[in-house]
Amino acid sequence: MNSLEQRILKDGIVLDSDILKVDSFLNHQVDVKLLKAMGSEFLELFSDKKDEINKILTIEASGIAIAAFVAEAFNVPMVFAKKGEHKNVGNDVYTADVYSFTKGRTYEIAVSKKYINKGDKILVIDDFLANGQAVLGLKSLIEQGGAEMVGAGIAIEKAFQPGRQKLKEAGIDLRALAVIESMSPETGVKFGTN
Amino acid sequence: MNSLEQRILKDGIVLDSDILKVDSFLNHQVDVKLLKAMGSEFLELFSDKKDEINKILTIEASGIAIAAFVAEAFNVPMVFAKKGEHKNVGNDVYTADVYSFTKGRTYEIAVSKKYINKGDKILVIDDFLANGQAVLGLKSLIEQGGAEMVGAGIAIEKAFQPGRQKLKEAGIDLRALAVIESMSPETGVKFGTN
Repeated sequence: MNSLEQRILKDGIVLDSDILKVDSFLNHQVDVKLLKAMGSEFLELFSDKKDEINKILTIEASGIAIAAFVAEAFNVPMVFAKKGEHKNVGNDVYTADVYSFTKGRTYEIAVSKKYINKGDKILVIDDFLANGQAVLGLKSLIEQGGAEMVGAGIAIEKAFQPGRQKLKEAGIDLRALAVIESMSPETGVKFGTN
Repeated sequence: MNSLEQRILKDGIVLDSDILKVDSFLNHQVDVKLLKAMGSEFLELFSDKKDEINKILTIEASGIAIAAFVAEAFNVPMVFAKKGEHKNVGNDVYTADVYSFTKGRTYEIAVSKKYINKGDKILVIDDFLANGQAVLGLKSLIEQGGAEMVGAGIAIEKAFQPGRQKLKEAGIDLRALAVIESMSPETGVKFGTN
């Protein structure tokens, strides 16, 4: 069992069969020692591709801290796509629309054309996978730049949601540190494998 | 000259006397090796207070990666306040209004009451200081929680803007890695001291 799975069992709060709160260590208060361990564990998870990956891409805001430590482990730069307003990125951007099931609306993500280049081999990192919309949006940004998406490294995958299937259909190599098969407040979290 | 000052001289782009673009290494594409060095330099900058600081607080999104490496250097947790919509934080939050001069509007920031506690000695970290509104908003969150703001560690201070004066008036111990006294596309960046 890796660091994240252990921590989910210890401090994750299962609100219902769909919602896991990890805001005490992952996406509001952040345990940077855990994130550093996760960086190493992502490096191990993608060890067969580690020599080709030259950039980490994530999306603001809760992916940033995780992606930063993954980038440190891979010894490559990290880029984070901006959500919604992004005047300060400039006009020379790739954009994609992402539908959020949580918020019930579509938002735009953008990344400066300067930071996705032909020949880049990019690993996408995000905190949660549920419906896969954010990852598909990031894949679109990568392809607009003529770069290659090497895979998607997800901290917590809700395997009972359609995300994995959608990413598979898009040809994405998806690997998660914690694959949640099912959960409930009574029985807790049941992990599966990639 | 510290790592950030050197990097600003090398890769920062001065668009006019007010706008410095650092998106190739700090707030869009992120050089995590630089951020790691900045974490150590912030630890040195606040070395007289390092034993009391037990938490780092920042604000999404561009403060997060910097604050993560500062938290690693201080060996304490990092918390990031959420902007705007924050349903996923829950209702039990401290909030403050922050006026953005860049965007010409006020937005709300929020942090769960669980992560600011009486007795906490909190160092605020942010990427830029111009008018000081974000730091003052974070100070309000800290004080609503009965905690103490030990200081504000800023990556890049625009010393020709009113931020420093406003933070001084609020009794905040402000220290920046890069204090920009003035800049222009012709003459470049002129650094001052804290």
